[in-house]
Amino acid sequence: MTRATVDLDAPPPTPPEDLEDLALRDDYALNPRYVGMVVEAADRGDAARLEELVGALHPADIADLMGFLSAEHRKALIPFLAAETLAEILPELDTNIREEILERVAPDILVKALGELESDDAAEVVDDLEDDKRDAVLAALSDSDRAAIETTLGYDEDSAGRLMQREVLRAPQFWTVGQAIAHIRDTADDLPELFFDVYVVDPAGRPIGAVAVSQFLKASPDASLASIMESVTEIPVDMDQEEVAYIFDKYHLVSAPVTDAGGRLVGQITVDDIVGVIRQESEEDILAMHGVSDAGRDASIMGITRSRFWWLLVNLGTAILASSVISLFEGSIAKLAVLAVLNPIVASMGGNAGTQTLAVAVRALATKELTAANAVRIIWREIAAGVLNGLAFALVMGVVTVLWFHTPMMAIIIGLAMVINLFAAAVAGILIPLLLDRLGYDPAHSAVVFLTTVTDCVGFFSFLGLATLILF
Amino acid sequence: MTRATVDLDAPPPTPPEDLEDLALRDDYALNPRYVGMVVEAADRGDAARLEELVGALHPADIADLMGFLSAEHRKALIPFLAAETLAEILPELDTNIREEILERVAPDILVKALGELESDDAAEVVDDLEDDKRDAVLAALSDSDRAAIETTLGYDEDSAGRLMQREVLRAPQFWTVGQAIAHIRDTADDLPELFFDVYVVDPAGRPIGAVAVSQFLKASPDASLASIMESVTEIPVDMDQEEVAYIFDKYHLVSAPVTDAGGRLVGQITVDDIVGVIRQESEEDILAMHGVSDAGRDASIMGITRSRFWWLLVNLGTAILASSVISLFEGSIAKLAVLAVLNPIVASMGGNAGTQTLAVAVRALATKELTAANAVRIIWREIAAGVLNGLAFALVMGVVTVLWFHTPMMAIIIGLAMVINLFAAAVAGILIPLLLDRLGYDPAHSAVVFLTTVTDCVGFFSFLGLATLILF
Repeated sequence: MTRATVDLDAPPPTPPEDLEDLALRDDYALNPRYVGMVVEAADRGDAARLEELVGALHPADIADLMGFLSAEHRKALIPFLAAETLAEILPELDTNIREEILERVAPDILVKALGELESDDAAEVVDDLEDDKRDAVLAALSDSDRAAIETTLGYDEDSAGRLMQREVLRAPQFWTVGQAIAHIRDTADDLPELFFDVYVVDPAGRPIGAVAVSQFLKASPDASLASIMESVTEIPVDMDQEEVAYIFDKYHLVSAPVTDAGGRLVGQITVDDIVGVIRQESEEDILAMHGVSDAGRDASIMGITRSRFWWLLVNLGTAILASSVISLFEGSIAKLAVLAVLNPIVASMGGNAGTQTLAVAVRALATKELTAANAVRIIWREIAAGVLNGLAFALVMGVVTVLWFHTPMMAIIIGLAMVINLFAAAVAGILIPLLLDRLGYDPAHSAVVFLTTVTDCVGFFSFLGLATLILF
Repeated sequence: MTRATVDLDAPPPTPPEDLEDLALRDDYALNPRYVGMVVEAADRGDAARLEELVGALHPADIADLMGFLSAEHRKALIPFLAAETLAEILPELDTNIREEILERVAPDILVKALGELESDDAAEVVDDLEDDKRDAVLAALSDSDRAAIETTLGYDEDSAGRLMQREVLRAPQFWTVGQAIAHIRDTADDLPELFFDVYVVDPAGRPIGAVAVSQFLKASPDASLASIMESVTEIPVDMDQEEVAYIFDKYHLVSAPVTDAGGRLVGQITVDDIVGVIRQESEEDILAMHGVSDAGRDASIMGITRSRFWWLLVNLGTAILASSVISLFEGSIAKLAVLAVLNPIVASMGGNAGTQTLAVAVRALATKELTAANAVRIIWREIAAGVLNGLAFALVMGVVTVLWFHTPMMAIIIGLAMVINLFAAAVAGILIPLLLDRLGYDPAHSAVVFLTTVTDCVGFFSFLGLATLILF
């Protein structure tokens, strides 16, 4: 956990003030002009200028800058990153850029940087190292740092164990506020830079409560910790980070103790770790709904092409399936080509109406606002709304068809097909994510494919089928 | 800011232990069986049981419970909500449910509840009151509470001013750590329940630094605040909450001072407020991309139908536009009905490929990873990937067409159309959100409509046009 700060009593690194002003736009994004200045200095091989430009940036902005540069230009910057700066940048980088930089940083700088990081961040960085470099770096670390990193890497990715920091303040319940403060003063050097809570533990090391740091300032020094502590929500070390974020969000937690299978305190998660998790999980949801895995900011053209290919292949399969429904009615189309003109409209409306229902259902499932307690009511509501909009658009499209083609019978056919397909869209839009969720899959993932397969097939079949039945 | 806690030294509200166990599922969502028990007790009119069931729940879970109940059942619960409980529930409720409950709560209970809330939460609640009730409630509040709420409501919705809490600890820079702690002890009753930082201000009231509470415990009592303070990132009071969340996420801030136009400290925003903002903004993005505004968990069927109607109407317009492209080729389709069978495949592939590009671009714009500094490179990369996948699927679809219809010429036509449409999809998928962003619109909003209009029209025109050109 780092903060957007510089030590005010340390001498400033003497960048001219105008550079800092120039670095960020008003919205705190990196200024494209500044990126251009870095590129230009790198192209000129102007080391002094590069050092000056990089020195004027906050580490989070250096990490951001890396994402805007090409691999060549990134390489030029690496020599100007001190171990302390590198430590603050590494956890911020996109995975593929981090891997690239880790390959190029000298091992001794890297070992120093890892020593600066908290255990969760250090583990994340080590996890990205190639095998031989990882062994070399781990061997060069202190025994305690290495043990901390290896323990963290022993937990599943995306689990509370990976997210937590092992550095935590604990105190026995019989201590007074004064005793706890004295202990904190004595061990100040070993403590996390920032902490919010002191956890009160029983003799077996299980957390039984927490005292917020601000309470220490307010409470009498003679008060026992047990008398002022508040109860805590324990996070099992193997809990998925999405669950952890849900709990923090729901109960407005600032920090929570992480416990092992025996209920013993092994670390803590703080709310600022959760901000990143929530951002990441919601981005994944948006991308997953559209069949993209984020290939990273600096992914290659081939990497991007490949990452999209498989979803498009699945989509091709479903599009062919839907087209084979049309081919059932080739005879009707040959007799009346206008059917082919109107045909995509019903399918398109079904796809969009169904995706609306789907988006709402996916969101409600993610926030646990859709459970067995209200599923029947929500399903009914979505289907009723689907039918109502089906009737509304049957009317609208009926009028359009009469005006366009002057055939009232065609208007009735397309209207009926619209009601049928918007009904099917509502049913599929709500039941598909519920079913995926019940089966243990992520409802955001691939639900759109299933849905549009249903709405395309039903749309084509109902419109062309009704037309064949009624007109021929 | 509240925490998932009960005072351990207060006597427990004597719910039998098994109720608390039963209330939540393993994933901390409310247990549907528990909701069923509440519904049953409400139907029986069993007040004692209802009180017991509600009493066993954490306020966040009572708020959650409200969302699962019908309006009738919610009404039955209101008498069992004490002012303190109500205070903790109100900020958690969906807007439409909150409005409904506020109508039914007795004004004296409401006034008491508002007194318990911090200024930002109280203002949000007051904002939802109907005019006459609002005037009555405001009149019954203390002068300072009323002034705080009215000031907060003077700021734009979704601005930092609405998000901040006005309660903030400030200290002049010449104070020592010891003096500041003594001041905190003296004024303990007026302080926020939890706080993370003390802001150091200059004589004009402008924040010049911050000291984390944990630093107070570690530092010597004789140290001056100026010597241990760290620099702060100031948030202008009129900044949009999405910008605030971006800054907190980027710099891993725990809290930040909010300043007025004169640079004076007027409040603070803490990271736990940001968790809600990030969750809310990302949910809005997912829903906006699909043309849904969240009508709320307990919205009526008519409310939902209306909220979806307009987007579907826009979609109908674009679908008709695309169909009018097909109608240009009615003659060709009448001669060769198989064209109508294959026609939707090219359009569907374009729509999906374009939405993939769009989802990536929308995400990158939101995280400010796509700016003028790398736009050209990203545009080029997306177009290249689009063309490569176009070539790949031209091949795949060509083979499928030969196997399905045994016409090599048709395979060439659909392959060419595929390349053209996946190229168009990439161009539209990246340029539409960039253009919307440049024009000051939210790129997530309605981008999908524009995109599929392009891919449908280009898909239909290229396939049917090539077929007409080559085959007839």
